[in-house]
Order: sequence, then structure tokens, then C-alpha cells
Amino acid sequence: MVREDLIVPEGSEGRSLLSDVAEATRLAEGPEGVRRVIRTVLRRGPVPIRDVARDLGIPVPVVAAVRGELEQRGLLTRGAGIELTEAGVRAAEGDIGLKCRRVFDRSTTEVPQDLAPVVAALDDLSERRPAVDPSLDQSHATSETALRRAVYLYEHDALEGRRLFFLGDDDLTSVAAGLAARELGLGRLDIDVVDIDDRLVQFVNQTAAKEGLPIRAFQHDMRIPLPAELMGRFDAFFTDPPYTLDGLGVFVSRGVESLVAEIGKQAFVCFGRRSPEETAGLIDRLLRSGLAPVEMLPTFNEYVGAQLLAGQSQMIRCVRSDPGRATVTERYEGPMYTAEFRKGRSRGRTV
Amino acid sequence: MVREDLIVPEGSEGRSLLSDVAEATRLAEGPEGVRRVIRTVLRRGPVPIRDVARDLGIPVPVVAAVRGELEQRGLLTRGAGIELTEAGVRAAEGDIGLKCRRVFDRSTTEVPQDLAPVVAALDDLSERRPAVDPSLDQSHATSETALRRAVYLYEHDALEGRRLFFLGDDDLTSVAAGLAARELGLGRLDIDVVDIDDRLVQFVNQTAAKEGLPIRAFQHDMRIPLPAELMGRFDAFFTDPPYTLDGLGVFVSRGVESLVAEIGKQAFVCFGRRSPEETAGLIDRLLRSGLAPVEMLPTFNEYVGAQLLAGQSQMIRCVRSDPGRATVTERYEGPMYTAEFRKGRSRGRTV
Repeated sequence: MVREDLIVPEGSEGRSLLSDVAEATRLAEGPEGVRRVIRTVLRRGPVPIRDVARDLGIPVPVVAAVRGELEQRGLLTRGAGIELTEAGVRAAEGDIGLKCRRVFDRSTTEVPQDLAPVVAALDDLSERRPAVDPSLDQSHATSETALRRAVYLYEHDALEGRRLFFLGDDDLTSVAAGLAARELGLGRLDIDVVDIDDRLVQFVNQTAAKEGLPIRAFQHDMRIPLPAELMGRFDAFFTDPPYTLDGLGVFVSRGVESLVAEIGKQAFVCFGRRSPEETAGLIDRLLRSGLAPVEMLPTFNEYVGAQLLAGQSQMIRCVRSDPGRATVTERYEGPMYTAEFRKGRSRGRTV
Repeated sequence: MVREDLIVPEGSEGRSLLSDVAEATRLAEGPEGVRRVIRTVLRRGPVPIRDVARDLGIPVPVVAAVRGELEQRGLLTRGAGIELTEAGVRAAEGDIGLKCRRVFDRSTTEVPQDLAPVVAALDDLSERRPAVDPSLDQSHATSETALRRAVYLYEHDALEGRRLFFLGDDDLTSVAAGLAARELGLGRLDIDVVDIDDRLVQFVNQTAAKEGLPIRAFQHDMRIPLPAELMGRFDAFFTDPPYTLDGLGVFVSRGVESLVAEIGKQAFVCFGRRSPEETAGLIDRLLRSGLAPVEMLPTFNEYVGAQLLAGQSQMIRCVRSDPGRATVTERYEGPMYTAEFRKGRSRGRTV
């Protein structure tokens, strides 16, 4: 599969179907919630309404209201469970961009056997990628972690048919996502990556070109606001930011600005576990950026080599809860990377 | 094992050892962090320092500082890994109250085979317990969930050698914890339960008396501040509160007041998944009560029967990040249970 197969601009019909149903049902989860109902039925149908509600964490009567609207439009039908009609499958596969019906076990930490080639390919790439630059708080996730992140993104509907943004990507998670998408035969996918490290930007672009992956990387210093063409256009962002709370705050705020201004758009934030006080500060920064954490997995990410945080960090999955917010919108002048904090004062627990 | 074996007031020596080491190392995790280092070494030793750091989410150099202090006191020794000395084991088993060296797989959702009798006992009890009162937002967790909660409390160091508080307990999780503690041969444990439903209070007390469990239940309406003797004395609290954000806020705030005024004390909050906006409100209420979420597991809890939220809710594990806070300290006059909101206005998404 080559890049052209994957990148197709999202159809306006798909978006207006989702928006129309969300409005008709006054759905607190917005168009994203409607999309999730369709996706769950596509992947699991025929499926009892109760199972759709469980899968999405949306109350049964609310899912029933969405089902009613989709039935009226001839996209859903009821029998032993809910099922997409032919028109429903066409809408899902067409404008919405959903093709893959694979369901992964969300609680497993093992690499699915058929995706093992992706891990091997990442291992191969990691021998040739730029060396770690500790002044930029770089530290490489393992190939298994990069692949597990890709599966996690897919399973939480941030990959297939999506515009996905990476703020920093020395872990090559974007490449893992692109390779996994190809392996799984996913529908269209459009990934943008920004990183301050030009060596990495070049490596990602070269790899994408060689493998035919739908990834574009740009050099960008996150202290500077994002260019206009990257603002307000993504369905989800992923970041494993600098290790300081200030660095996290800047990256997350830029990430929020990159998202479509709609409730329910997702953010995937990887960050080391902290002391109780710093954890409160971390969560507060997410909330103030208009992101609500919905899942926190303390030991999700594994890194290569022995580090201060013993080679692990947490995965925090968030949903956009307030489409108006982003805390840092101007140029940021303060310190952001661990090394910058070391210059000015003792390290303390900023790492 | 009878109640007298389990309830022993926590030794002042244990507490001062933990506080002394926390102060000497200026540990951001406080005495709780020192306790966790000792517990991890007891359960896993001899263990590499890196593994202790991973287990606790505390940086390696910080764990090394704690190790140094414990070595100086003759409680720890270094060989292939860190290990408790005989004096260390005595301190752990004595004043700190840690006896059990069992380590459970944190990611598994299965009931450990040797604890299956606890599930059977809970099944038996659930046939005789008071019927659900929906006006109090009661809804019974399954016996498997009650047992898994007990294991989760143990694994996260909220059970053995602890004073544990339940704000509401129509799920009988306190009984599950008591039975599991007996089955595992845990050191002392002291559980207090308050619930507005006197039928339930009587049932818990009768069960505790019959089974010889270290549980005392009291009738209490959470709108009213806790009695003085329950304030500031617990190591952790557990609650599966009313389904409204206001109800959650009151329960959590009372829970925070019940905790020892020390950073790192834990809160276990079960709550249905919500819309993005309500999730932000939920997390904000936790933060404003001085609790930082450290783990969020969206589908941890399963309930009996078909409910609005399709019989599942999330587990949010928090640590006390600010020993001074609790948002609701006076008598609370507002509505708290779902039915009270239904009276005044349409239900909307308060459920």
C-alpha cells in the first residue's frame, strides 16, 4: 500500500452525518461519540446495545437515542443486536474512513503475533536513527512500546480515518503507527510530526518516503506557536514531552491548539510518574488546557537503557472537554528541558 | 484468625522510623514513600534498586537515598540486590504491620485461584444482604469485583497494616477486604464503614461478628460532617459514591477529612464514565479536594444487572497531594442522589 491510498481528505459528508446525529440527540460526546457508535457496531456487530454502551462508556439510553437517529437514516438495523445496513457500511468505509474490523484485547501487554514484523522493522530502524540528545530530554521508547502505542491509538479510534499529530517523536511512534496501519490494512491516515531535532525530522521523512507511509515531518521549536496550517485540524495528538512540568504544559497547550475545536477529540500524553504534589500539577495543567484524563496507565511505556525513572512512564489518555481552551498561545520564553532547569537551579525533582 | 489478632494500634515506632527517613531524605512522597520502599523490598527482595524504582514510580537516585538511610539504621543490606536485614524484617512485620509477601499480577483481571473461596462466601452473603435501594443510588458490584477491589487495595498497599475507611459500602467491599485479609494471612487491619442505610450497617456488623473480621460499621448521613473520632485517622479511603458530581464531591471531601494529614495517603474512587465535560468536572473535584489521580481504569468495576451505565464503572486511584485541603467541611444542604436531582429538574446526564 502506498501513500496515495492512505491519504484522502476527510469527506464533508461523513463529518456532516456525525454532526447532524450529534445535534439531533444533543450528544454530550459530540460528533466523536456518534463516530464511536458507528465504529463499535462496524467492528462488533451484530452487537447488543448494552455492549456498545460498555465499549464506549456512554449510558444505554443515550446510545439508544443515537441508534434511533441512525436507524431513521437507514444506516443501522436491529435484529439479534445492532448491525450496520449496507448503506451504513458504505458510510463507515467511505466518508468516515473505517475499514478495519480488527478488535484487540485492550488489557493485554503482549505484541499481537501478526504485528511482530512491525517490531522487527522498528528494531532495524532504531539501529540507524539519530543518537539520543539528552539536552532535549530525548530517550527512546522500545520498539515493543512504539508498536503497543500504535495498537492503543487504533483501539481508541485515533488512527484509522484520522488526522494525527505528533509533538516531538524521537521514539518513532509515528513510523510505528504508519507501519501498523499498513499491516492492518487500515483506511486513510494522515500523520504530521513536528520536532525540534532536524536530524530526526529528516530521518522520519526519509523513512516515510522509503516505506510509502502517510507521514510528513517538520522542524519546529515548540516554544514558538504552531504555524497556522497545523492549527485546529487534527483529530488527536500524541506527545512524550520534555520531562519538566513547564515543558509538558507548553507541548500540551500547542497540542490542544492543533486539534479540531470539538469536544471529544483525543490527546495521548506520556509522562513519567511523579511525586503526589507534581502529579497534581500535571493533572491541573491538562485540565487547564481543556483536556480531561479518561485513562491513566502508570507503567504503559518502556524505554531503552537505565534512566532516572527506571525506564517506565505512564500513558494518560485525555479527551478534549472544552473546545475553547489552550493555556500557552504566545511564544514561550521560559526553560522547558531538564538541562535548562539544571543551569539555573538545583535539579530537585523536575526530572 | 479472630478480630483481636488483626486489630493492633499502629506502633509509634513504625511511624517515627518512616517519618525520620522521609525527613532525612526530604522525600516528596513522605513517610508513605519510605513504607513503600520497605514493603517492596520485603515482598521482592533481594531486588535491584531499579526494580524498586519501577515498582513505585520513584526515580532511582531518590530510592537510593532512602536505601542509604535504611542501611545506616541497619535495616537494609546490599548484595545481588537490596534485602531487608533481620532487624529490617522485624521492623516491617512489627510496627509497620507487614507480613504477607504475596505479589499479585497487577494487570490481570482474573480472580486468583486461592481466593476463589472469598468469592463463594460473598456470593452466599449477597443472597441475604438488604435489597438495593435505588433512591440511594445503590447498585451491587459483583462478588468478583468486590474481591478484585480487595486485591487491588492490597497490591497498592492500602490493606495490610492499615486503617481503611469506607464511605458507603452497599457492595460489601469491606467484607471482601476482611475475608481476603484472612485468606492471605495479612498483618493487622482496621476497617471502619459508614453508610446512610441502617439495614446495611447492621448486616455488615453481623457479618463481621460472625466471621471475626476487623470491621466496624456506623450509620451516618454524608451530608453531615464526620464525627471527630473518624477525622484524620485513616491511611486510605474507598468510595463508590452517589452518581451525581455533587454527591461525589461531598463523599470525596468527607473522605479526605478522614485521612491522616500526610502526603501520599490514598483514595480509591469508583465512578461511572462520563461525558468529556463531566469528566473534567469530576477530575477537578478530586484536585480541589487535594487528591491527585495516579491511575484511572475505565472498566474496572462490574455491577449486577443491567444499568444505565451498562454495568461498569471506572476505578480512580488517587494520592493525597495537599494535606490541608477538603472542599466540603460544613453540613451539606444540596441534592446528592440521582433521585433528588430528578425531582427538581430533568435528569439530563447527571446519571
